Amino acid sequence: MVPDVRGYTMELTPSMFIGVNGNDTISFGSGQPDLPPPPDIFKVLKDYKDFKYGLIKGQENLREMLSKDFPGSTKEDFVITNGASEALDLAFRALASKKRKILMHKPYYYSYPPLAHYNHLTPIFTETVKGKIDHDDFDEKVRDCDIVLINSPSNPTGRIQDMKTLKFIEGLCTDLGVTIISDEVYKDLIYERENYLFKSDNVVTINSFSKTFSMCGFRVGYLYSNDPKVVGDVAEIKTHTSMNTSIVAQQMAHEAMKADKSYIKGQVKIWKERRDYIYNGLSELGLEVWKPEGAFYVLPKIKNSRKMLTDLYTKHKVITYLGEWFGAPGHLRLSYALDTEKIEKGLQKIKLCMEDN
Amino acid sequence: MVPDVRGYTMELTPSMFIGVNGNDTISFGSGQPDLPPPPDIFKVLKDYKDFKYGLIKGQENLREMLSKDFPGSTKEDFVITNGASEALDLAFRALASKKRKILMHKPYYYSYPPLAHYNHLTPIFTETVKGKIDHDDFDEKVRDCDIVLINSPSNPTGRIQDMKTLKFIEGLCTDLGVTIISDEVYKDLIYERENYLFKSDNVVTINSFSKTFSMCGFRVGYLYSNDPKVVGDVAEIKTHTSMNTSIVAQQMAHEAMKADKSYIKGQVKIWKERRDYIYNGLSELGLEVWKPEGAFYVLPKIKNSRKMLTDLYTKHKVITYLGEWFGAPGHLRLSYALDTEKIEKGLQKIKLCMEDN
Repeated sequence: MVPDVRGYTMELTPSMFIGVNGNDTISFGSGQPDLPPPPDIFKVLKDYKDFKYGLIKGQENLREMLSKDFPGSTKEDFVITNGASEALDLAFRALASKKRKILMHKPYYYSYPPLAHYNHLTPIFTETVKGKIDHDDFDEKVRDCDIVLINSPSNPTGRIQDMKTLKFIEGLCTDLGVTIISDEVYKDLIYERENYLFKSDNVVTINSFSKTFSMCGFRVGYLYSNDPKVVGDVAEIKTHTSMNTSIVAQQMAHEAMKADKSYIKGQVKIWKERRDYIYNGLSELGLEVWKPEGAFYVLPKIKNSRKMLTDLYTKHKVITYLGEWFGAPGHLRLSYALDTEKIEKGLQKIKLCMEDN
Repeated sequence: MVPDVRGYTMELTPSMFIGVNGNDTISFGSGQPDLPPPPDIFKVLKDYKDFKYGLIKGQENLREMLSKDFPGSTKEDFVITNGASEALDLAFRALASKKRKILMHKPYYYSYPPLAHYNHLTPIFTETVKGKIDHDDFDEKVRDCDIVLINSPSNPTGRIQDMKTLKFIEGLCTDLGVTIISDEVYKDLIYERENYLFKSDNVVTINSFSKTFSMCGFRVGYLYSNDPKVVGDVAEIKTHTSMNTSIVAQQMAHEAMKADKSYIKGQVKIWKERRDYIYNGLSELGLEVWKPEGAFYVLPKIKNSRKMLTDLYTKHKVITYLGEWFGAPGHLRLSYALDTEKIEKGLQKIKLCMEDN
């Protein structure tokens, strides 16, 4: 237990740290880019005047623009959501009525098991080798599942799945009639190579403006599927659970999509520099760590991880996330979406804390 | 089946009409005030610069301000949500694990049964007399339930529950240990008297900025409870299903709360004039109709209601909602949140359509 940031005590959970931005706190916690969004997204606010309900599926101009990024799609294949979180929840909800088991690779994003639980899906886990899916284990387990959830690049490991693996999964799931939910929130933030995007008909793609355009607080994500039944069911559920996504935030997302490609390239260059910095720093501390290939997370193995998290927070004002939340006990997850100066300071605190533990 | 507004055909549902605002269409459909929000909500956009994740429970300044409206509350008792819809969904989700049966009064808001269904709650219905809860029927059924859902003023009837009834429900539910979810989205829009707000500890209050401040499109609502367990569980679920509510929309809501009381009084005066106008108009057409006492809905009894809805939409470009969606077959629900000129035109079309049916 740590002194609770919400005013009452409770077990350690990520929700305690999200949105906590004290000036003297170093947060390796939530995956919040510190780099600003494309500046033009604020310009659209100056003359903003709309206030009425939007379409449940989302603003037409935004869906139209998205459809240009997905060959063969139309704007009717998209639903704009309150971030990727809601897109995932809606996809799970829409598929849960008939689908019962969902295969996830470990370590996984901490929301996946609760979302499965809320939607009465049983999560099945496939093990990975240094964050990479094991073909044999996947092959064995997928045959008993109805849905597969892929997250590449991964939160919390920063690892990407090999091109060969993604094609293997696509082929096998197509043959077996298994739906792939592909959480591609970090697809634009890969250092090593272009991403491979699933192309088969059984894919539900989840994405967000939060990470690519540094727009976490506005909560705009989307779901894409070329199956009208899936899209229709998702829109029907959303009618009752939240209605349209905030219209002003959607307009900002639309503006963000107009940003020059150099915006994203510039961000990726910085993430890569920081990746090198933190990866080398953690290695020098003698920690076992897989080299991130995308996103901005790293998952070092750490002794007494619970006590380390608590000490780091209470004694050193350094926020980290617990590996256990991601199915990786004995680890801490660090987001390196902060400048190298803070990373350096944070690493020093971790060093101090390791000496005490 | 009607020609679908989303590009493919499907059964009639409210989601087909939400956010559809054609210039030559007269919409008695979704409950979207046509009157503008307090103008200052747009002023906060001019220098808006935040972009990071907000707290899951919502911005502190907004919760602080809300707590002033609820004697004895603190900002920790609130969770800001994506409209009242998400607040309801989260409340259902948080209570569903232990609670199984939920009592609703008929006619009900169309999202209530699907939300119960998504959250594996069994809806039980208590009948009403002209929209007013029947004490005996309520007393009999509540004893078998774990949650009671009250919506006064009601969407779709515009009726309010008598003060005596609300106190009776409050007392009985407290004695029985039944949780009351009070959907008070229209609590500021009552023509007849002040509302009575439940005061007991077993109440979860749902509200929204959408109707009071004409902010439907921005999607800001909230949940209030003085039970830290309920609030904590709701925040925990929201961490995984949508994270914070859009920060820019919350800032607009905060500004709306500063509006002079005359803003709301002015709106209510207009709703009341329109209420009189449409109530008299429908009565003159010979339709059986209960006089609305709040909100901006009326639920006339109408023969061949499905065909009427379809004809009104396809032949006359008039959107209405089907009574069946609200548990009131043989009725149409009309929102009168539009100017009297349009109401007059719409009534003429209804008259024409009735003559053809």
